[in-house]
Parts: sequence; C-alpha cells; structure tokens
Amino acid sequence: MKNKIKVAVVTGAAGFVGSNLVDDLLRRGTSVIGIDNLSTGRIKFLHKAMENTNFTFLEKDLFIDDNFEEIFKDSDAIFHLAANADVRFGPEHPMKDFEQNTFVTQKMLEATRVAGVKKFVFSSTGSVYGESEAIPTPENAPFPIQTSLYGASKLACEGLITSYAEAFGIQVWIFRLVSILGPRYTHGHVFDFYKQLTNHPEYLSVLGNGSQRKSYLHVLDCVDAINQALENTKKHVNIFNVGSNDTCEVRDSIRWISDEMQLDPIIKFGIENRGWVGDNPLIHLSTEKVRSLGWKSKYTIEESIKETVKFMKSNAWIFD
Amino acid sequence: MKNKIKVAVVTGAAGFVGSNLVDDLLRRGTSVIGIDNLSTGRIKFLHKAMENTNFTFLEKDLFIDDNFEEIFKDSDAIFHLAANADVRFGPEHPMKDFEQNTFVTQKMLEATRVAGVKKFVFSSTGSVYGESEAIPTPENAPFPIQTSLYGASKLACEGLITSYAEAFGIQVWIFRLVSILGPRYTHGHVFDFYKQLTNHPEYLSVLGNGSQRKSYLHVLDCVDAINQALENTKKHVNIFNVGSNDTCEVRDSIRWISDEMQLDPIIKFGIENRGWVGDNPLIHLSTEKVRSLGWKSKYTIEESIKETVKFMKSNAWIFD
Repeated sequence: MKNKIKVAVVTGAAGFVGSNLVDDLLRRGTSVIGIDNLSTGRIKFLHKAMENTNFTFLEKDLFIDDNFEEIFKDSDAIFHLAANADVRFGPEHPMKDFEQNTFVTQKMLEATRVAGVKKFVFSSTGSVYGESEAIPTPENAPFPIQTSLYGASKLACEGLITSYAEAFGIQVWIFRLVSILGPRYTHGHVFDFYKQLTNHPEYLSVLGNGSQRKSYLHVLDCVDAINQALENTKKHVNIFNVGSNDTCEVRDSIRWISDEMQLDPIIKFGIENRGWVGDNPLIHLSTEKVRSLGWKSKYTIEESIKETVKFMKSNAWIFD
Repeated sequence: MKNKIKVAVVTGAAGFVGSNLVDDLLRRGTSVIGIDNLSTGRIKFLHKAMENTNFTFLEKDLFIDDNFEEIFKDSDAIFHLAANADVRFGPEHPMKDFEQNTFVTQKMLEATRVAGVKKFVFSSTGSVYGESEAIPTPENAPFPIQTSLYGASKLACEGLITSYAEAFGIQVWIFRLVSILGPRYTHGHVFDFYKQLTNHPEYLSVLGNGSQRKSYLHVLDCVDAINQALENTKKHVNIFNVGSNDTCEVRDSIRWISDEMQLDPIIKFGIENRGWVGDNPLIHLSTEKVRSLGWKSKYTIEESIKETVKFMKSNAWIFD
C-alpha cells in the first residue's frame, strides 16, 4: 500500500472533521492517538472509535499542556486538525485565533520536530485566499491579502509548516478546505438556521442579503480527498484545495434546509452582501489539483445540506 | 502636508533601519518614542536623536514587557521594525523567529488596537516570496511557499496586520524589503566578509558558490521609500516591495568589498547555489509599485556596498 501510516496522532479528534478522519484511519488499519480538549469537540463522536483497540483518546489542551513530543514519538504522521474554527466572531476576541491556531500549530510543529515524526498534515481553509479575484481560486492564486483574523491565523500556520518542511525535512500536506457539512456538523450557518427554525419555525433571520456564494463539501468526501492526497503524492510540500466543483447561494441553502424540515418560513434578509466583517461574499476553490489524483466528490451540495439537516434532526443532543 | 504624523512610536529604534528612520522622522518634525531592548540595537546609533527634545527612548523588551498600549496611546502611527532579522540561523532555534517576529507583532497589533492608534507600519521582507518563479517578483506574485522560518514568521505578521486592518479599521503599510546596506549596518554577508578580511586579509571563505543573485538597497533610499509611500497612499492596506532595480552576484559584492578594503584575497567558494537552508539563490523584487509614487533610489548597489565598508572601517566599535 502507498504511504501506509501505521500510527497517527489526530488533534481535534472529537471534532467534526477530526472524528470522521479518526474513523476513516481506523477503518484503514492505522492505530490512532486522538487528542482533544473537548471545548467544542464531543466525546460522543468517538463512541465508535472507542470500541476499537487501535484507538487511544487523550483529553489534553494543546495551548496549555506540554510534552506533546512524548505523545508523538512513535507516530508516523501528525494530523493537526484542532483549531478555533469560528471565522465570524474573530474581532470579538482578537487573541483567540492567534493563540488557538497560530501559536498552537507552532507548538505542534516543534513537538513533531523534536519527536522526529516525518509527516505533518494540516487542515487549512479557503479563507487564506481572502477575497481572491481568481475564481475558482487555484492553489497558486495571486499573493492573498487576509480579510479575517481566522484566515490570517491559518495562513500563518501554513507558512510555519512549509518552512519546517524546508528546514527539518518533514513532509507536509496542507488542505485548504471549504465549509464542510455532514454527520457531526456542529457549527456554521446550516447549524444556526436549523436552530432558529427549531425555535421559531415560521421565520428565519439571515445575516447578509442571501446572495453570498459558498462552496460546501460533504465530510466523507473531505476525508476521502485527504486520504487520496496522502496516498498519491511524494513531494515534500503538498498543498491542495478541497471543495466542490460548484457553489450555491445562501438563499439556495435556506430553501434546501426548509424543504428538509418541511417548513416554509418568512425570511428576513440583511442588506449587505456579507454576513459579518471578514465574511467572504464568494468562496469557490479550484479543485483541479486534487481531482488530478483521481479524487472526486460523491455528494452534491444539496445532498450535503440535506444530510446535515437529517443528522441534526436525529441528534438533538448536539444543541445541549 | 500629506499624511502628517505628529507623534510616532518606532520599535527596534536602535537598530540599523530603525535608527535611520528615527533620524528621518525627527528631521520631518515628528515626535518620536523609540523602543528597543538593545539586544542587537546599539544605543550609539541614537546619539543624534538623543539630542533632540522631540525624541524619547524607552529600553523595553517587546516579548517580555507589557502595557505597550499605555506607551502607544497618544501616537498617530506605530512603526514596528523590531524583529529577529537573522534568516540564516533559524533552524538552530526554531522558536526564535516565531516569538520575536510573529508573537511580538500580534502583541503590538493588540496594543495598537487597544490604544486606538490608526496607522501601523511594518518592515517585512522579500523572503516572504520564498523562491518565487516570477522575477522580478511583484507584490501580487503567485501564492508563496515559505522556505525559511524567518520568511514564514514575517508572512504570518503580514496576515495578522491585514486582518487587523479589515477588522478594526487600522490603516496599514507593509514594506517588503530586500537586504538593506549603508551606515549602521551590523549584520549580514557584507558584515561577515568584512570581519573575515579584517581577521585574515589574505583569504575569504564563502558559503555557497558565489552565484546567488541578491538585490541590495541603501538604507537612506529605504527610509525615503517608506516616507514617500506613507505620504502618497490613502488605501486601507498598502503593500510595497522596496529594493533596487538591479541585482548583483555575491561574487560582485566580494569584488567591491575587496576593492574598498584594497585587498586581493584568495576566495574559497562552497559548491551549492545557496549559502544555507532557506537561503534564496535569487532575490529580485519588482519595485514598479513604489516607483509609481515618484520614489527612486539614489544609490547603486556598488555604491551601497562601498558606503557600508566605509562605515565599518570608521566604526570599528560595532565589532565589539
């Protein structure tokens, strides 16, 4: 098998993407050490993994705790997915993105280097492109200007990671993800809309005028893209956009959510073409590079949104 | 006068570029608060400034000390120049670039925000382009891949700065500098070569094969470019390359240094086309953007190198 990973560490293991990745790695026979501080991650997402003897869970805080090199030392790869993933509220706590994303990533890189681990995998974001004029945006788009604290903190991580690759011979993969949907999804606009419509089924209040275009991807497609990229690349520095080929407007997603909930709410839109400072009115990444490895998405955006609503319906506990 | 700055803070004020900038601001009638921890800065570089009643010097460590918002609160602009500027030794202390550059810049941005200062000026580096294929490299070159811890730490700063501009309405200037030469120059390859030739005038040992192409700029041209950009831009986010129109090979610079020292040393070259991990064999920035504001350099690279040697000759104390 290509690029076979025997032992992996996954940070943010109890998170949305993290827990789906853990399940996928275990299914492929990899032993996994999952780390999470359970601040937004849910231990329930790891129930299936916990039954597997190849899985170990450690409740640790990457910002506060230390000696991660000890935990890392027998691993082939570190999947660093833990992050503050909240783009919208960045300006309300300007140190949070920096501490939880940039600072913690530097700490993980140091632990990786000291432990002598040779592969480092990172979940970045399409937000690093700021408001690119190149649409769909390729990996080598013009030098981006950051428009959100979140995007800036992730771009900083990317730079640190590639410089560690160069300086210390670590092989790195950086995945610039669009918004991910599907089972275990617990924050973002589909979550907010669903919650509103559960509380008051007759109306929905929307930030922005609804014409923002977004590209969503199902989490199983996302995990599949990560796996394909790991198996089919040999370069030192590997950077891939991961997203859908198409986009939808926020209006479309509202219709699909309402359909799935069998509701017909009155919708109150904002007037701006963005929902908040740093919101990008159009995110559409070119995914030609990862597709050239043979990957393609199995779910349409509509299916991803409807699957997400189904998950929320049958898992009301996530709103506790 | 355009963009008149009444009160400015300069961090790294006792440094090479910092002290030259302080002198320039004072000459233009700006009151200046200079901060430096004197780790690499030299208090002697501020002797002229110290005689000016519009200048205040504070010996502070940006990484360790706190409450910079108190110091910043009556200023119109923060010029954040303090940094670990040592590209070459990054891999020997992997936390240093992160702490001294990225972490400290985030701290300065927070102090700027809390103090309500409206302008933030930053000295970045041509190293943020990594090894760009676009030569000369324009500001909107393709998305760069970092090849040095130093460049990565500075790219991280840039992202943080532009996201603060977006989130908090701070006007920002980022200057991507080539290597700067001239009076008060105290580290880098001209310094190293001069020091070697002072110790053993008959031979010189060079890292790399001497064919690395670099673009150097005289510090007075650099300070002038910063000033012109500040006076002639109104945008929120302003990013400028600052460098010479031409380049030289390391071999050329050796010849000019030797000429100025009236020496004819035997030169022992390395075999690689780079001097160390992360050294870029070709740095040449496009400076069309800053030139379009009316700026142009007054010194050739040869003049800059020879002026630097003259400065070192008459200031032997810098080697203490």
